Amino acid sequence: MSGHAPSKVEAILNAGRMLSDGIPPSDFFEAAQMDDVSKWFDFWADKGRAYEELGDSAIAAGAAVSGGEWLWHASLSWHYGQFMWFHDVARREEGQTRKVELYKRAAPHFSPSAERIEIPIDDTVIPGYLRLPAGAGPHPCVLLIGGLESTKEESYLFEAMCLRRGLATFSFDGPGQGEMFFSVKLQKDFERYGSAIIDTLDSRPEVDSNRIGVLGRSLGGYYALRSAAADARLKSCVSWGTFLDMSDFDTMPEHTADGFVYVAGYDDKAEGRAFLQDALDLRDIIDQLNCPTYVLQGVHDPIFPQHQTDLVIEAIGAKPSVEIDVEPDGDHCCHNMGQIVRPRMVDFLVATL
Amino acid sequence: MSGHAPSKVEAILNAGRMLSDGIPPSDFFEAAQMDDVSKWFDFWADKGRAYEELGDSAIAAGAAVSGGEWLWHASLSWHYGQFMWFHDVARREEGQTRKVELYKRAAPHFSPSAERIEIPIDDTVIPGYLRLPAGAGPHPCVLLIGGLESTKEESYLFEAMCLRRGLATFSFDGPGQGEMFFSVKLQKDFERYGSAIIDTLDSRPEVDSNRIGVLGRSLGGYYALRSAAADARLKSCVSWGTFLDMSDFDTMPEHTADGFVYVAGYDDKAEGRAFLQDALDLRDIIDQLNCPTYVLQGVHDPIFPQHQTDLVIEAIGAKPSVEIDVEPDGDHCCHNMGQIVRPRMVDFLVATL
Repeated sequence: MSGHAPSKVEAILNAGRMLSDGIPPSDFFEAAQMDDVSKWFDFWADKGRAYEELGDSAIAAGAAVSGGEWLWHASLSWHYGQFMWFHDVARREEGQTRKVELYKRAAPHFSPSAERIEIPIDDTVIPGYLRLPAGAGPHPCVLLIGGLESTKEESYLFEAMCLRRGLATFSFDGPGQGEMFFSVKLQKDFERYGSAIIDTLDSRPEVDSNRIGVLGRSLGGYYALRSAAADARLKSCVSWGTFLDMSDFDTMPEHTADGFVYVAGYDDKAEGRAFLQDALDLRDIIDQLNCPTYVLQGVHDPIFPQHQTDLVIEAIGAKPSVEIDVEPDGDHCCHNMGQIVRPRMVDFLVATL
Repeated sequence: MSGHAPSKVEAILNAGRMLSDGIPPSDFFEAAQMDDVSKWFDFWADKGRAYEELGDSAIAAGAAVSGGEWLWHASLSWHYGQFMWFHDVARREEGQTRKVELYKRAAPHFSPSAERIEIPIDDTVIPGYLRLPAGAGPHPCVLLIGGLESTKEESYLFEAMCLRRGLATFSFDGPGQGEMFFSVKLQKDFERYGSAIIDTLDSRPEVDSNRIGVLGRSLGGYYALRSAAADARLKSCVSWGTFLDMSDFDTMPEHTADGFVYVAGYDDKAEGRAFLQDALDLRDIIDQLNCPTYVLQGVHDPIFPQHQTDLVIEAIGAKPSVEIDVEPDGDHCCHNMGQIVRPRMVDFLVATL
């Protein structure tokens, strides 16, 4: 598809998100000084290669934890290199592929380690990582869902926050996301993928199958609500950034709208828009949402506007088990106040699972 | 004493250090926009109070890990409020006191927890925190020493890095540092305090007393070299930022020089300078340094100049067990490349303990 290239570095540089997810400060400040956004991809690719070298050397020298963490830095560098590169498919796919491969190599070395699990569905698999907290199980577990261009590899620090609080994590890419994009584009029935994961986790003795929750971020916040409404085995739900439908598609930042069309697998924007407005709408399922649910939204979110928050509140806000947190100072997903909202979401899961 | 107030926010705002040690990005960026440095202390005091409230509420609600982490944020906010406030003793002491008290309340809730230990020496105690990694002990352990105005409360994230790599940590304030400043000012024989700590750790079954190392940062890098030279029970040493003597006192940033005079307990700068130049000199002891030692120094360090690195290399560089790492892109303590140098120092300790 022929999307629009980002016009300025500032348009894609997201301090709160990138730093909270683990981009090192010095890399962030260096990127911020870039004079031309067209250099963005190569800048991060170079960072990725440098961390990869550090990681491989460390592993070879027996420093496995550092090796894993540097490979994670490498993966995250490639991730942010490609995350807004919808207009340049070849490079975006190169970035995705490198990110996935580096994280796969990093995962066994994490402390605690991340176990890659591929869950069969239809003629493909759902790729994800299971991590377990310290202590004897079975543990409560949260499914972590990414968004339009956030993927399972971005959840490393968020997982650590869950693990410190005794919560196991399963981060995965669903249809249209990360590496699964290559086999399945965005689907109307995301919840079917969530249920397939629960089927698999049910058989894991380390996980308490009566204490599984779900948390999704950005577009994943929508998926989390769908998943929890569809599958009563999900006992708690956090929607970290949310919307009810795609009626505000035309007022989204051009870039984000292009991204939606891309992950839906469309070349033509009008066709993509029509598909998305049909596929992404909670009204068919939201009535069935009955588990404790926490909705977090920032007033200054330029992607999911206040209008969408109002629609979600109208649809689910009256239920007694729903907590709505609309932060007056928050931006998209309240990334600008991660140190406050991120632990709060995890605590909600811990308290309700 | 009558030191000089910082003239500009940029003079004390240290991105690499503050973000690597755990200041949340949004707080950092808000501080960077401050139009008048005289607002600095109150800005961080307000942050500290806000995190304290979050922390106390979380603990009351049973979310102990979040509570501990928010109290740590509170402590760190007060810490950076006062860290360059040598010219305003009352406020500096208020900041120190609040920092210490908040961290003390946070420590039991960390994951893993931090045990406060007070080690008797002369007519006072050395205050510190012991943290143990996962798994069965006894564990190798590193003593973590702060600098001129960096203290044990600043080591939380560095400790986590050690713990993930299987290394126990004991972070403490020595003479002239943090809360110990109130009972003992900077001393010539810092190594005596290190040895008192080893005496105590010797009796702890969780710590392998044959595998104790030391790492010090900034002025602590000097103390680490002294301590390792003086006590053969220290089996590995990392000097994270270093100098041999105080012959470059007059070319230090005015602020830092004032700080040295302050922690030495002098009102008069000339007297303080004379005391410091006598008290801080490795020549009396450095010959005895025999354990594996790693020295890290940044070429662009404005506090400990290249001249001091040369002196240290001359004094110890020829020993076979010494590794010298002078980073061409590094600033003071290479804080601007923490994601590269911090794991490397920990890996050196792990490999040599």
